[in-house]
Amino acid sequence: MAKAKKVKAKKSKKTKAKKAKAKKPKSKTRKKTKRKIKKSPIANRKLPTPAATAESMAAKQRTISISEFFSKNRHLLGFDNPRKALLTAVKEAVDNSLDACEEAHILPDLVINIKSLADTCGRANKFELTVRDNGPGIIKQQIPNIFARLLYGSKFHSLKMSRGQQGIGISAAGMYGLLTTGEPVQIISRTNPEKNAHRYHVQIDTTKNKPEVVLDEECDFDLPAGTSVTITLEGKYQRGRQSVDEYIAQTAMANPHATIYYYAPDGDTCKKYPRQTKELPFIPREIKPHPYGVELGLLFKMARDSSFKQVSAFLKNEFSRVSPRVAQRICDKAKLRSTLKSSRITLKQTEALHSAISETKIMAPSTDCIAPIGAEQLQEGLKRVVKADFYTSCSRSPSVYRGNPFLIEAALAYGIKDNRNSDSEKEPLMRLIRIANRVPLLYQQSACAIYKSILDINWRNYALSQGKGALPTGSVVLMVHIASVWVPFTSESKEAIAHYPEIIKEIQLAIQDCGRKLGIYLRRKKRIQQELDKRRYIETYLPYIGEALQDILALKQKQVDTVITRLKRLLEKSRKV
Amino acid sequence: MAKAKKVKAKKSKKTKAKKAKAKKPKSKTRKKTKRKIKKSPIANRKLPTPAATAESMAAKQRTISISEFFSKNRHLLGFDNPRKALLTAVKEAVDNSLDACEEAHILPDLVINIKSLADTCGRANKFELTVRDNGPGIIKQQIPNIFARLLYGSKFHSLKMSRGQQGIGISAAGMYGLLTTGEPVQIISRTNPEKNAHRYHVQIDTTKNKPEVVLDEECDFDLPAGTSVTITLEGKYQRGRQSVDEYIAQTAMANPHATIYYYAPDGDTCKKYPRQTKELPFIPREIKPHPYGVELGLLFKMARDSSFKQVSAFLKNEFSRVSPRVAQRICDKAKLRSTLKSSRITLKQTEALHSAISETKIMAPSTDCIAPIGAEQLQEGLKRVVKADFYTSCSRSPSVYRGNPFLIEAALAYGIKDNRNSDSEKEPLMRLIRIANRVPLLYQQSACAIYKSILDINWRNYALSQGKGALPTGSVVLMVHIASVWVPFTSESKEAIAHYPEIIKEIQLAIQDCGRKLGIYLRRKKRIQQELDKRRYIETYLPYIGEALQDILALKQKQVDTVITRLKRLLEKSRKV
Repeated sequence: MAKAKKVKAKKSKKTKAKKAKAKKPKSKTRKKTKRKIKKSPIANRKLPTPAATAESMAAKQRTISISEFFSKNRHLLGFDNPRKALLTAVKEAVDNSLDACEEAHILPDLVINIKSLADTCGRANKFELTVRDNGPGIIKQQIPNIFARLLYGSKFHSLKMSRGQQGIGISAAGMYGLLTTGEPVQIISRTNPEKNAHRYHVQIDTTKNKPEVVLDEECDFDLPAGTSVTITLEGKYQRGRQSVDEYIAQTAMANPHATIYYYAPDGDTCKKYPRQTKELPFIPREIKPHPYGVELGLLFKMARDSSFKQVSAFLKNEFSRVSPRVAQRICDKAKLRSTLKSSRITLKQTEALHSAISETKIMAPSTDCIAPIGAEQLQEGLKRVVKADFYTSCSRSPSVYRGNPFLIEAALAYGIKDNRNSDSEKEPLMRLIRIANRVPLLYQQSACAIYKSILDINWRNYALSQGKGALPTGSVVLMVHIASVWVPFTSESKEAIAHYPEIIKEIQLAIQDCGRKLGIYLRRKKRIQQELDKRRYIETYLPYIGEALQDILALKQKQVDTVITRLKRLLEKSRKV
Repeated sequence: MAKAKKVKAKKSKKTKAKKAKAKKPKSKTRKKTKRKIKKSPIANRKLPTPAATAESMAAKQRTISISEFFSKNRHLLGFDNPRKALLTAVKEAVDNSLDACEEAHILPDLVINIKSLADTCGRANKFELTVRDNGPGIIKQQIPNIFARLLYGSKFHSLKMSRGQQGIGISAAGMYGLLTTGEPVQIISRTNPEKNAHRYHVQIDTTKNKPEVVLDEECDFDLPAGTSVTITLEGKYQRGRQSVDEYIAQTAMANPHATIYYYAPDGDTCKKYPRQTKELPFIPREIKPHPYGVELGLLFKMARDSSFKQVSAFLKNEFSRVSPRVAQRICDKAKLRSTLKSSRITLKQTEALHSAISETKIMAPSTDCIAPIGAEQLQEGLKRVVKADFYTSCSRSPSVYRGNPFLIEAALAYGIKDNRNSDSEKEPLMRLIRIANRVPLLYQQSACAIYKSILDINWRNYALSQGKGALPTGSVVLMVHIASVWVPFTSESKEAIAHYPEIIKEIQLAIQDCGRKLGIYLRRKKRIQQELDKRRYIETYLPYIGEALQDILALKQKQVDTVITRLKRLLEKSRKV
């Protein structure tokens, strides 16, 4: 059927093209061509465009603005469908708010409000999302660039653990809102309790990647300092595993120091997640790149552009963990004078320097640039989410990929008491909770390095069954947290972690640690069960042994009872259960 | 163990920080702090950075150049590990060459040459990749921008099926080469047989995203017209499923009109893939966007920026499939005058226009912007790759997502005669070959819409077994091709297709079509097997029936033979096997 349809479609196109080209009535020849086309519909189609030349192709070359690129490729930013778009917008706004509060050492108080707006046709596919925080606020001049310009931010050029990293998120959410509803982003911000707040309406000019200010006025604000962002966008609200509700619940779990109020679009009720601790998490410090991760070309460029004149000073000041002595040792190994001018270094010399670095022993990067949640806290967090029989967790020591320090933590719960799955007889697949720099990841699970790490582990070693190419089965929840100064996501929407071998290895070590403990628990549980079964089996026959002895030895009932009690005690002692 | 290590690491840091801060000898108090830290290593760590204010945060805000962004995020472009980096570089160069040849209506002759270069330490992790084509060449002025500037190209702004689309690929490969080896990209190009060729060495300035020309001279070239690109990069050559070899074999399969010579880095032998057909594939035509896919905000912007003054003219000229009558009908439905000035349209009016478009019946977009491979050709291609018992294929008619036409084709082979898997007893998982716009996709299979579509199908309906959350098992190869004017990839490295519901639906329909045919084949095969088994069973007993009849009726041997022959014939007739 489908095939027949296609041929027809092609035919009609064909004839149209013909008509446009030559208006002379040549009905006979045209019929002939038609018949030919039917035989081989694709190969014989005529070339509809003239052949291009180098010149005609050159004339078409143009630069592409980054906003044009991302508005066409908006699935890269997490806006591929209305449901995910709503989640992504919430996520970007919340990430920014939490980052700002922590940077200013303020305990975050967040209000997330999603209102459903009916469009002209009465469909509920338009939402007004507002996120308000008690952060330090944003100064007036920066507001347009921060909210309506892609690739503008403070976190890209610094090596420090934070939720945002690329300066795309919130502007992209605003761009998506503008694209789908035509409404600008509305911002109210106050930096000083003694001054008035500012209200801005800004929108992005996609062809130039520049902000346009639609409204700029002073206004009131009910907090002494803070920021409120409102985005109107097309979306879809739906509960479930990948919902805004789930995201906010997981965020509250990973950020016990934040208070979050959440007004869902489907009612007036407010969900409140009060803070669990009044202590701010460890605030990470900014670091310099570690020499082990730098590539030859980058090293060359850095040396050439460096403001430090001598190579040794360049090494000491532009990298972390390079002491004057280490710098001297590197120069010696590379057979370079340490007083060599770094701006005049040649590619050949850089190559020597590069291999000298990899041969010199340099301390692992400092870890105060990353803030782990901690094994205990992670386990506590997991306990709050799922009720289970067994919990375990593990926090690895920091490691390095491409010069960036990172750290893996994992927590595991077994024997979930879940009402949702009780009716299905089949054992469910393992449930996975992925968190990166305290931000829960809900989409693209199977593209994630965490997923791959789990698949590559033989879970039968840990007494779980596992199908080929699938997650292990069992009522298990596994939570993995990666903290890094630069989490390598597979796309700008920050949904899955790229498959760096160093990261996969660390994740596997953390999971295997949890797995081993689970295996011990499960095997012990099984052994106890087997022992109990055996004992019950023997116990069943004890009275008969008593009877038999009574018959053979002509014992009294009292004697029989004593014998049975003794036998029982012996049994208990010998089997140690 | 790991935990103990970590605490130690933290301690040493801590003391260091202390030392830096206050050089007074306060050994006693320091010891106390140490002990405290041991108890709760994370919560009590002191804040290493002063609290930020709105002003201090504003001072750090900066724009980020797109090259900086991608050089830091180079896994987004497919350069996350050395093996993949080599493949991606080959892929980008080959894509460009094939696109250029086809656009100029030239049958492509490609030479791919990968040389292994030992670095200073003698390790074989440096490669020199050269791709030479017989295309139209590139004019002198464009070379630096094309090869050393991200987001520069001719394909982004046009709706037309091509391999490249975003103007990132080849420049990114060059940038990766520069980063890892410091070597510039080397280009030789000739556009005119009567003129000399030009040799360029260019490199990207990542902070500005601008090309730097290192060398610019005239030179000889052994082709009348064409381009040769050489990139020196760090990589890893390894055979297997995700290798350069596999990629080139699959490319040859999807492009039967191209001749490809391939010199692998591990020897002097050359693999030659001669062209299978001298006919160029159908060259797709450029189209305008379809009104169904346009969003409110974009429509508003397009109308405001349009060079066509009246709304009806704007609709007619800026969209495909909008005739003057359709434009009039849309305006009527939206209750707008068709002479309304499009530059003065309000958001409210655009909203009316937008919903009027969705209510008006508009012809599906023209399909001459996409070139399917064709069901037969796809099946032929599959036959060249795998030997199997059963083949089937299906080519769907075009469909639309977000206004972009796309088309799905699928081919399936069952009963693979593969020597590699013969030793393992377990049935292997289905093997999947994914192709997008004639480019094979080798990585990120599980993130792809094609993978998701397969997982969501119940393969038991088609007589294949399938584990939970995994591909079906069986000696099956499934090949899926998506052709579109804009393939929505999940990342810039173009490895997996984003989960647009429209695309997933079409993929499923195509696969299900193949699946049904496979099911019929497998069930018939099974039925025939069962029939044969039954017949063999009955045939075994025929002689005994003969003997019994002989005993009862006292027949002669000859009569018995006749009866048996008749019974056999009857059996064959009744069971129709």
